[in-house]
Amino acid sequence: MMTCFVLINVEAKKEDEVYDALVAVKEIEGIREVFGQYDLICRIEGKNLREIRKLIINQIRSVPGVITTTSLITSE
Amino acid sequence: MMTCFVLINVEAKKEDEVYDALVAVKEIEGIREVFGQYDLICRIEGKNLREIRKLIINQIRSVPGVITTTSLITSE
Amino acid sequence: MMTCFVLINVEAKKEDEVYDALVAVKEIEGIREVFGQYDLICRIEGKNLREIRKLIINQIRSVPGVITTTSLITSE
Amino acid sequence: MMTCFVLINVEAKKEDEVYDALVAVKEIEGIREVFGQYDLICRIEGKNLREIRKLIINQIRSVPGVITTTSLITSE
Amino acid sequence: MMTCFVLINVEAKKEDEVYDALVAVKEIEGIREVFGQYDLICRIEGKNLREIRKLIINQIRSVPGVITTTSLITSE
Amino acid sequence: MMTCFVLINVEAKKEDEVYDALVAVKEIEGIREVFGQYDLICRIEGKNLREIRKLIINQIRSVPGVITTTSLITSE
Amino acid sequence: MMTCFVLINVEAKKEDEVYDALVAVKEIEGIREVFGQYDLICRIEGKNLREIRKLIINQIRSVPGVITTTSLITSE
Amino acid sequence: MMTCFVLINVEAKKEDEVYDALVAVKEIEGIREVFGQYDLICRIEGKNLREIRKLIINQIRSVPGVITTTSLITSE
Repeated sequence: MMTCFVLINVEAKKEDEVYDALVAVKEIEGIREVFGQYDLICRIEGKNLREIRKLIINQIRSVPGVITTTSLITSE
Repeated sequence: MMTCFVLINVEAKKEDEVYDALVAVKEIEGIREVFGQYDLICRIEGKNLREIRKLIINQIRSVPGVITTTSLITSE
Repeated sequence: MMTCFVLINVEAKKEDEVYDALVAVKEIEGIREVFGQYDLICRIEGKNLREIRKLIINQIRSVPGVITTTSLITSE
Repeated sequence: MMTCFVLINVEAKKEDEVYDALVAVKEIEGIREVFGQYDLICRIEGKNLREIRKLIINQIRSVPGVITTTSLITSE
Repeated sequence: MMTCFVLINVEAKKEDEVYDALVAVKEIEGIREVFGQYDLICRIEGKNLREIRKLIINQIRSVPGVITTTSLITSE
Repeated sequence: MMTCFVLINVEAKKEDEVYDALVAVKEIEGIREVFGQYDLICRIEGKNLREIRKLIINQIRSVPGVITTTSLITSE
Repeated sequence: MMTCFVLINVEAKKEDEVYDALVAVKEIEGIREVFGQYDLICRIEGKNLREIRKLIINQIRSVPGVITTTSLITSE
Repeated sequence: MMTCFVLINVEAKKEDEVYDALVAVKEIEGIREVFGQYDLICRIEGKNLREIRKLIINQIRSVPGVITTTSLITSE
């Protein structure tokens, strides 16, 4: 399995909505609101890079209010 | 009490509107327009991180024209 | 007189429109399209910081298609 | 000939659409989806900077869903 | 308890040394090597901001080879 | 008088030394340790940009352990 | 096979030395000097993330004069 | 002729030395100290990208105290 941390920037006024949507996704673990230059951090796992990309696009970036994602693929 | 500096980027053409809205919020102190890669800086105080987050979301990010906020929590 | 360089990011598809609008402003000098992480660079002069800020807000950021500006105030 | 790498950020939910549009452009080579702070990387070639700029504006930035481009002109 | 994610940049040629030093610290959890603009990510917990700051300074930044740290305090 | 906020990055292992040196400078006000992508924030005042630049160079950047400074000149 | 683009920042005065060292490494393809916020771009391939990480650490970051690397793992 | 703006970051305590060295180079025009995330801005001209690169490496980056340069090639 591969792990990827995703740092998320959220549209102003959509913070709770995005958080609630992401918390409900079972492939997303450890979601936390953060202070600093990002708004949220979470962790996803996938069998390979293709699956991780799909999760980022279909489960995170597809949520209304998500503006940008910075993904940190972890080394095996 | 905890203190947090907030660096704010504002939508073009909304500068005065955002400034006026933030100046009117009593929990926001020392708001200043700045040159550089940010547009505004201000300071908020809260009893804990939860309260600071609430102020950022409800009093700053909720203002129409605020695009992004970078929050710098100060060490106690 | 004070001088300020302004690095501008422009909305995709508005490049020519923004360039043409800025070229027509007499207080804006030396506007050039650039490669890299910014789209345009220009120079403005003002009697003081207040005047420079006014020029940035009223003559640059007010142009439809300007997304963000990074201003570099020069030392006297 | 001059070569330019273009790092592209894409609007959430437009990833496939942008990728498909860019893949179809014959002047764009080696387009790949990437993890990290950018979403796509590609390479363009042109006779001079003017032609490269035209390709970036007319073939890349004109695609709906492209938000920002960071261009890396290569040294000859 | 408060949680803080720390994104770490490491001096070239010190990667293994820094990783091994941080893995041995019991207050540091979940350390992973990452691809992208950072080199390592980890998580620390503390009773308050003062304790978190101490951990960052005494347990992370004090390790030879650590260049910069970006800390993301999580909201309670 | 002009005001400038200075965001400071400090060499690992020099945090206390830099903080103590800056706290002792009477032209530097409101110095605070922060979490995020910067390490310290402070505020300086000067009669004009020349004086502010002098303070940044002679009182802040001259302190051993200061790596970079990002200065945010405030609008009058 | 997995592909990774690496954006490299080089110490001032070590540009040619680093370029020459990297050109000689057979696992590094398409190395080019670039203008902008990075100094060099190259491409590496590996059987998996572990191998790519090894190449980045042993063949790129180990070269004297390499300061930082930003790695863009491509999606399969 | 091609024009390139160069944004320069200078080592703390080397500000005057670097400024004086660059002012003396006849190919460097319009050098100014700036506030913000960069320390100096200047402009160079060259017959082609190769010549501009040579000027950046031999006349700017070779100056002791220059840490990083961000070059903005202008469109013809």
